[in-house]
Amino acid sequence: MTDFTATKAMFNLPVGMVYLDGNSLGPLPKAAPARVADMLTKEWGEMLITSWNLSGWMVQPMVLGDRIAGLIGAEPGHVALGDTLSIKVYQALAAALDLRPDRRVILSDSGNFPTDLYMAQGLIRTLDKGHELRVVAPEDIKDAITDDVAVVMLTEADYRTGRLHDMADLTTKAHNVGALTIWDLAHTAGAIPVDVAGCNADFAVGCTYKYLNGGPGAPAFIYVSPRHSETINPVLSGWQGHESPFAFDLAYDPAVGVERMRVGTPSVIQMAALETALDVWDMADMTDVRARSIKLTDLFITEIEAACPMLTLASPRDGTKRGSQVSFQFKHGYAAMQAIIAEGVIGDFRAPDLLRFGFAPLYIDETDVHTAVKRITRVMTEKLWDRPDYKIRKTVT
Amino acid sequence: MTDFTATKAMFNLPVGMVYLDGNSLGPLPKAAPARVADMLTKEWGEMLITSWNLSGWMVQPMVLGDRIAGLIGAEPGHVALGDTLSIKVYQALAAALDLRPDRRVILSDSGNFPTDLYMAQGLIRTLDKGHELRVVAPEDIKDAITDDVAVVMLTEADYRTGRLHDMADLTTKAHNVGALTIWDLAHTAGAIPVDVAGCNADFAVGCTYKYLNGGPGAPAFIYVSPRHSETINPVLSGWQGHESPFAFDLAYDPAVGVERMRVGTPSVIQMAALETALDVWDMADMTDVRARSIKLTDLFITEIEAACPMLTLASPRDGTKRGSQVSFQFKHGYAAMQAIIAEGVIGDFRAPDLLRFGFAPLYIDETDVHTAVKRITRVMTEKLWDRPDYKIRKTVT
Repeated sequence: MTDFTATKAMFNLPVGMVYLDGNSLGPLPKAAPARVADMLTKEWGEMLITSWNLSGWMVQPMVLGDRIAGLIGAEPGHVALGDTLSIKVYQALAAALDLRPDRRVILSDSGNFPTDLYMAQGLIRTLDKGHELRVVAPEDIKDAITDDVAVVMLTEADYRTGRLHDMADLTTKAHNVGALTIWDLAHTAGAIPVDVAGCNADFAVGCTYKYLNGGPGAPAFIYVSPRHSETINPVLSGWQGHESPFAFDLAYDPAVGVERMRVGTPSVIQMAALETALDVWDMADMTDVRARSIKLTDLFITEIEAACPMLTLASPRDGTKRGSQVSFQFKHGYAAMQAIIAEGVIGDFRAPDLLRFGFAPLYIDETDVHTAVKRITRVMTEKLWDRPDYKIRKTVT
Repeated sequence: MTDFTATKAMFNLPVGMVYLDGNSLGPLPKAAPARVADMLTKEWGEMLITSWNLSGWMVQPMVLGDRIAGLIGAEPGHVALGDTLSIKVYQALAAALDLRPDRRVILSDSGNFPTDLYMAQGLIRTLDKGHELRVVAPEDIKDAITDDVAVVMLTEADYRTGRLHDMADLTTKAHNVGALTIWDLAHTAGAIPVDVAGCNADFAVGCTYKYLNGGPGAPAFIYVSPRHSETINPVLSGWQGHESPFAFDLAYDPAVGVERMRVGTPSVIQMAALETALDVWDMADMTDVRARSIKLTDLFITEIEAACPMLTLASPRDGTKRGSQVSFQFKHGYAAMQAIIAEGVIGDFRAPDLLRFGFAPLYIDETDVHTAVKRITRVMTEKLWDRPDYKIRKTVT
């Protein structure tokens, strides 16, 4: 059993604040400042360039990649860290289209995070071969997987509502019509049990600064199925993905497996912080995390619906169909979220009218849910968001 | 006049070590650990997501970009930070080729850093329109700028020998035949005065972890001339380069100017470290830096040639044609560099036979040159690299 009191104690959580925004930026692991300071003063300051070997900087993207592999059901050695999620989307999509040269359709949904769609738009323009980005409503995605589709590119959990796609089912459907899949795990890695290998996913990408708590600007990750990792030809063919980066050959020769998806120099300082976040994950079992997540979000929904009838649930009511977040619709959502934040509950507003709250079981407990509900209820019932005499506090007390 | 005693005092330089490898990884600014600790504990730890606005994380890539603009002669507002140099090369090259749709030749030289060539190879394959990467010897580059060339893509200083290309002259020649230029400043930003605007460069890219001392994994930068920045259509069209990233539109709409070259979430922790490195640059005048660089490298060449006749100068003898590094050829270069490092002089070996030494005037002085020469001389004259009885020290004392 995961000891969630112990995991919560590993994070810096500002006094008085209920932080329900770990689905945007996870909190600081208490161990991060000391680890980063050590990295800076010893590894960089004293050891300088020798740290590329002696401190393991060069292999870190694969070493940490393996730790993330364990959280998303990937085969060891098939996850590489680096760059940003946008870049990883581009790499995965280019590789996938390259594997389906006779097809022209990229299928996605309107619930996908916009940067995934933007990167697809940029790639399509670059390829200039008449590819189509076909965007359908999330609920229509399964029917839209037809045999002209090259790649199904989806974010597993909708960033606004938390609605989950069924990775196993949609991947099977895609494969049945000869399409490949790219799964964006931004809102599921560290939030729900993910099994990319078990689902036969072809590619998966994600970020490490949300539920994984790696810090602002933490590197992204990419998974390539062993079925494809030796055959894909990287479009972003950088020297860190070269078979022998220090041979300084003039011609690109891809490294073995997913390591070819590395591009440039890894962000070593960011990785030191991420390392401490992954240490907390070593204390957690994802099945426990998921059970607690459903319990907390169910509780939140029940209590908010009882106390705040003016809010309309925008997330799936069935916990198994929902990521680790809950969203409510409210016409004056933007103003309401400002007041909720001022009352010490940190959530996010998402246009046009969503109040979004993330529940990260590693550091959110039932007491936090009760406190959050109490504060949100005060904002909503007293209409604090609409009272000109209400002074928004500048700091959380 | 720049006070180089003061700038040297700003860096952590391991006792007993002469660090002549700042052209690979600059040393730790003493202010970096405290600044990063503050960023971690206060900005991330306490302020959490509010720091995107309140701590300026969101605008940091442009704010720090402006500080780099001052070091490379760029117009304010026309440099953006982010990603890695490889990614920035890809972006610049794709944009440049897009501006010359009727041409098919990318011209570069065999002295370019391999990743620039690799990224070009990947882009050419993606475009699949018969582009040619034409690689000539560095000394042949000017004659090779012909009217079939779309883009001249060069690194200003050769990473092995430090040989400089004439940016103004080659850019003029390129423009005369209707070609564009991309200048990789990896080995010149912070090493010599660079004037991208004065030279009419079209694009420039560079890294910040060498002479700029931003730390391992520090973000890259990209400059786009105001002539092009409003017309280019980014191929890596990520949400941070969107006109309104938080509108979450489904269609990409490029931000104003060079900010459209931003892609994903910036590496905030890396930027905090880089900030302290740029503070040191505020104390320096690039003309002084260049004068001192030439003086130090001239001195090093003179003394080494006098003491070590077995070494053959591989860098230009004329200081004005040389970056801030000196390389010598030696048949047993790899073994020799191991022994030199063991003696406390940190340089680099570059295949097949180069001993490479970087001189960063911000923290290297004449005493360092004398010490380095003395130690190198001992290695060479006593053939320490070839003595099985010579025990390489594990730590520098």
